[in-house]
Amino acid sequence: MNNEIRKNRMTDAIVTVLQADNTPLANQEVVIEQTRHKFLFGTAAFDLVPFTNGEYEGEKNDQAQNRAEKLLALCNAATLPFYWARFEPERGKPMTAQVQNAAKWCLDHHLVTKGHPLCWHTLTADWLLSMSNAEILQAQTERIQRDVSDFRGLIDMWDVINEAVIMPIFDKYDNGLTRLCREMGRINTIKAMFETTRAENPSAILLLNDFDVSPAYDILVEGCLEAGIKIDVIGIQSHMHQGYWGVEKTLEVLDHFSRFNLPIHFTETTLISGDLMPPEIVDLNDYQVEDWPTTPEGEERQAQEAIQHYTTLFSHPLVEGITWWDMSDGHWLNAPAGLLRKDGSSKPAYDELLKLVKGEWWTAPTKLITDSSGKIQFTGFPGDYELSYEGKQQPFSLTKKDATAIEVRL
Amino acid sequence: MNNEIRKNRMTDAIVTVLQADNTPLANQEVVIEQTRHKFLFGTAAFDLVPFTNGEYEGEKNDQAQNRAEKLLALCNAATLPFYWARFEPERGKPMTAQVQNAAKWCLDHHLVTKGHPLCWHTLTADWLLSMSNAEILQAQTERIQRDVSDFRGLIDMWDVINEAVIMPIFDKYDNGLTRLCREMGRINTIKAMFETTRAENPSAILLLNDFDVSPAYDILVEGCLEAGIKIDVIGIQSHMHQGYWGVEKTLEVLDHFSRFNLPIHFTETTLISGDLMPPEIVDLNDYQVEDWPTTPEGEERQAQEAIQHYTTLFSHPLVEGITWWDMSDGHWLNAPAGLLRKDGSSKPAYDELLKLVKGEWWTAPTKLITDSSGKIQFTGFPGDYELSYEGKQQPFSLTKKDATAIEVRL
Repeated sequence: MNNEIRKNRMTDAIVTVLQADNTPLANQEVVIEQTRHKFLFGTAAFDLVPFTNGEYEGEKNDQAQNRAEKLLALCNAATLPFYWARFEPERGKPMTAQVQNAAKWCLDHHLVTKGHPLCWHTLTADWLLSMSNAEILQAQTERIQRDVSDFRGLIDMWDVINEAVIMPIFDKYDNGLTRLCREMGRINTIKAMFETTRAENPSAILLLNDFDVSPAYDILVEGCLEAGIKIDVIGIQSHMHQGYWGVEKTLEVLDHFSRFNLPIHFTETTLISGDLMPPEIVDLNDYQVEDWPTTPEGEERQAQEAIQHYTTLFSHPLVEGITWWDMSDGHWLNAPAGLLRKDGSSKPAYDELLKLVKGEWWTAPTKLITDSSGKIQFTGFPGDYELSYEGKQQPFSLTKKDATAIEVRL
Repeated sequence: MNNEIRKNRMTDAIVTVLQADNTPLANQEVVIEQTRHKFLFGTAAFDLVPFTNGEYEGEKNDQAQNRAEKLLALCNAATLPFYWARFEPERGKPMTAQVQNAAKWCLDHHLVTKGHPLCWHTLTADWLLSMSNAEILQAQTERIQRDVSDFRGLIDMWDVINEAVIMPIFDKYDNGLTRLCREMGRINTIKAMFETTRAENPSAILLLNDFDVSPAYDILVEGCLEAGIKIDVIGIQSHMHQGYWGVEKTLEVLDHFSRFNLPIHFTETTLISGDLMPPEIVDLNDYQVEDWPTTPEGEERQAQEAIQHYTTLFSHPLVEGITWWDMSDGHWLNAPAGLLRKDGSSKPAYDELLKLVKGEWWTAPTKLITDSSGKIQFTGFPGDYELSYEGKQQPFSLTKKDATAIEVRL
């Protein structure tokens, strides 16, 4: 394990084990075991919507079940879809119930949920086009109010606004949000969306999210903060269809954004296991191919790059989450971007990430002997743990802050 | 003349000509003639410092005299140098008197003066390197206070801060301003510099200036405005050593920056009359050549591009000034960027710009007959004019605002 991970991620813990009568459990062997990471290892989990709503049948359902199990083995967080054009294709008929089912399934399986996105020019509702900007703002505001309220408790983390850097100058096609953002300006648009979301769910974690990692985004974050917008987490996409950034660029990006001293999520991380997208493509959406196969060499490369990328990000003290995009091949752009192949089998990248997330960066069941005052000491990663003694289990949490004052009562 | 220039630049004027006894000068022939543009046609005029301080001798002085005359024939504005490393190479010994002489010469010759720049990471004082950031901020603040105060009345327009987009991430070499901006953030650095400048000369026109025309600069301007910084003019550089932007890109840049509804100056415009700089050069300063000759084909291209660029900019209602960079060949980067060759002869670009600025966009002496109430009507470009009648001259000004209520008393 590298020194940065040890320094920035791990915590020296002291746990006092007490018996039912509150006396220390002295000089006894106990077993501790990690059950969950605090760090968010997430994935885009759009597939969970049809799966949890019973839309798959027979073999397709078995495959979806297999994908869900593999997701749960690796991940503790899931991003659920709120693309307005798909969420509410006909005004007034949102697919709230279906996504609620997926969110409930996630919570039942101990996944942290995030909604993506509440406001974006791409895949925004077509029916905004007939509106004035005032009406668009009202519809967008009401959409946020409705959805954030409908999902409070089910989803308490939101990509509030997506890709605001390009939003007002997006020129591929006319859409309501580009019109609105052009008139309001980026900062005032962001402010309106954040304030609306915050009002509906004051304790939610709110992200600004962008694929732009140039100074434009850096400066936008600064402008938002100076304008008093409370951004909880800076969201950075890293869709690397055209090749892995490499450690140097990743560190440079982290350096530029870490000066705000805010948590950072890598919200959309793509590394593909096939031929790379040609470098001359500017908008990834322009690359439309019938078939984009995963290859053995590509899978090996993807695995090595995934190890490197996750290690670089996990080493940085401000990064608090990484979301893979997508879990399986054949989704966005038909890319071989999955950790699983189309047939549901694991690629090397899945296996390697699992070795890190549930291996090198994980506390497997470990025997420890309490001292005369019932204390055990260990070094672990923040998250949830379980302590076992003579067939009894008790959970406890390890946080950086209170790591030396943990008490477990049997 | 194109329609946009007619619509956005020209004004229908009504001038009432009164005799000394305040009665209208009815039914008489008068001559009107433009003497100065309100629109700023400027140039980098660093050469005026040695020239006006008597540092040239003999033939060199004659050449400088020739350059100065050609500058005055074409331009009504001059940018004077305040690069800190050169202005105050030894702390406490600024070259204030020399630049004051140049500024006085400019005012004597009816040139609007601008100082460039008060704060920039490139060519900042080396002696900042031994300081703490608090000391750098204090030295930078005192430098602005001293220079803006010393030049009040001589220079009332400033490029306050130069290239803030790259300032905190500039990585060519260590310097005091990059250190400071990295700690303070771009917006707070800009705020400090603007407020300091404003306090010393409240009526001065203050510019933010950048070569970056990407969304990064656009977003920085928005962030500054949202943070309450009063930017009077948005300064945009257009150093086209690697080739003319073309009309489409120029209009796109204007479109992005015009949403702030602030005046725009094209502060540093370069079109070269020789071979183009290779496109792979990212920082223009990296291109170091012994000899970079002007060529006949290059001069013809430069002339056509200059016509096009000036016409595009002059057509836009928010653009209020264009500064050429440099007046003569052989200055920055040793580039054939001049309107004049090294021997002082005019290139075609000079002649073509002169035809526009003092020809097509200019009111030459024009005979008009006053009506029975002493009124004449004409359509002209805002600026200063002279009305002549029977050997007597009277000046008047044409502004967009009061164009139909001008009175001239003989």
